[in-house]
Amino acid sequence: MQAPEALVFDAYGTLFDVHSVTRLADSLFPGKGAALSQAWRTKQLEYTWLRSLMNRYDDFNTVTAEALDWALESLALPAKPGDRRALMLAYRSLGLFPEVSGALERLGKGHSLAILSNGHPDMLDAVVDHNELRVHFGERVFSVHEAGVFKPDPRVYAIASAQLALPAEAVGFVSSNGWDAAGAKSFGFRAWWVNRGKAPVERLGSPPDAVVGNLAELATLLA
Amino acid sequence: MQAPEALVFDAYGTLFDVHSVTRLADSLFPGKGAALSQAWRTKQLEYTWLRSLMNRYDDFNTVTAEALDWALESLALPAKPGDRRALMLAYRSLGLFPEVSGALERLGKGHSLAILSNGHPDMLDAVVDHNELRVHFGERVFSVHEAGVFKPDPRVYAIASAQLALPAEAVGFVSSNGWDAAGAKSFGFRAWWVNRGKAPVERLGSPPDAVVGNLAELATLLA
Repeated sequence: MQAPEALVFDAYGTLFDVHSVTRLADSLFPGKGAALSQAWRTKQLEYTWLRSLMNRYDDFNTVTAEALDWALESLALPAKPGDRRALMLAYRSLGLFPEVSGALERLGKGHSLAILSNGHPDMLDAVVDHNELRVHFGERVFSVHEAGVFKPDPRVYAIASAQLALPAEAVGFVSSNGWDAAGAKSFGFRAWWVNRGKAPVERLGSPPDAVVGNLAELATLLA
Repeated sequence: MQAPEALVFDAYGTLFDVHSVTRLADSLFPGKGAALSQAWRTKQLEYTWLRSLMNRYDDFNTVTAEALDWALESLALPAKPGDRRALMLAYRSLGLFPEVSGALERLGKGHSLAILSNGHPDMLDAVVDHNELRVHFGERVFSVHEAGVFKPDPRVYAIASAQLALPAEAVGFVSSNGWDAAGAKSFGFRAWWVNRGKAPVERLGSPPDAVVGNLAELATLLA
């Protein structure tokens, strides 16, 4: 099989560790940081899927804030307005998984690199710049926002194909979210699932081309 | 506001207790029944949303079986083929919540009653007949199957409106799934959320007209 010309990365969970907000959450609500982070992320994804199906798209900032409100209430955590602001702000400075910078360095030698994310362009620019990833991605940081729908709607993956001016089969898609890899594969991309959590493969009818444990393994696989 | 002419009920979680499989699950995998039931249900819903977004509809039997396989693997439960068959079969004979029959009796006096469910027509007929609910619903047991997409896509709610030959505003929709009530409300139905789990209201832009604790409370509200 022909090597892909471009590699397109999911952002949250793949490059950026969404649970890096746990420490802040735990300082605000001692002993509850991990539970809050987990409930927040789960509800955030649910809302992206549900709003997409309901034809009620709202941007990822709003969805993320609404998911936080739900998570705080579900755990009965008495958040002050300043707590909520601090947690939302933390989403703009999420940390990288430790192997990401080195792996992008290696992968960028043979491929054009891009990001395709649910994030609003503002959020994406903030977290990309915070982590000094512009050197790898340039202006190839694509948001679902212009499609007005979230992953895994095929119109989202079409954005990357169009912006890169590449046919689907020339694009390799990389995500730690099994369902996102399945959506990309179903669209026509080659797909690699970064199975950071050692989860079972998703049964969605379009399994990934390969499964790796992290991005360093992907760099070795594609070397 | 005008009283609704018809009441349309969600099935799984609203009339039928999806966690009534817990006892069987616990007898097969001692101490793990509740965890299996929870993981199964969560993944089942996820797959309905994801397949709908991916334009990869498959019927609810298949989605339910695939979600069971995922849940068994995620919990590392060594299921024999007979265990899997028994659990799938149990889905056709889920139990009712205790107040359902009495509440339907009361609600049926002033309204035409119907079901609108993600379930495949075969599964729905089986569980409706198992619980002797045909007396309340007659042939008004509607499945998403003909739309080829799952809730909360608006095309699903349109099925009930069309089959009942009623405009959306004459239909009241009842669901214990907050996101399903939100989808129905967004479509144009009046919506009551049966908040069995005392969960926070979903932040999806279309809150329910009222929240009740169970169907007996709904019957009192509408009396």
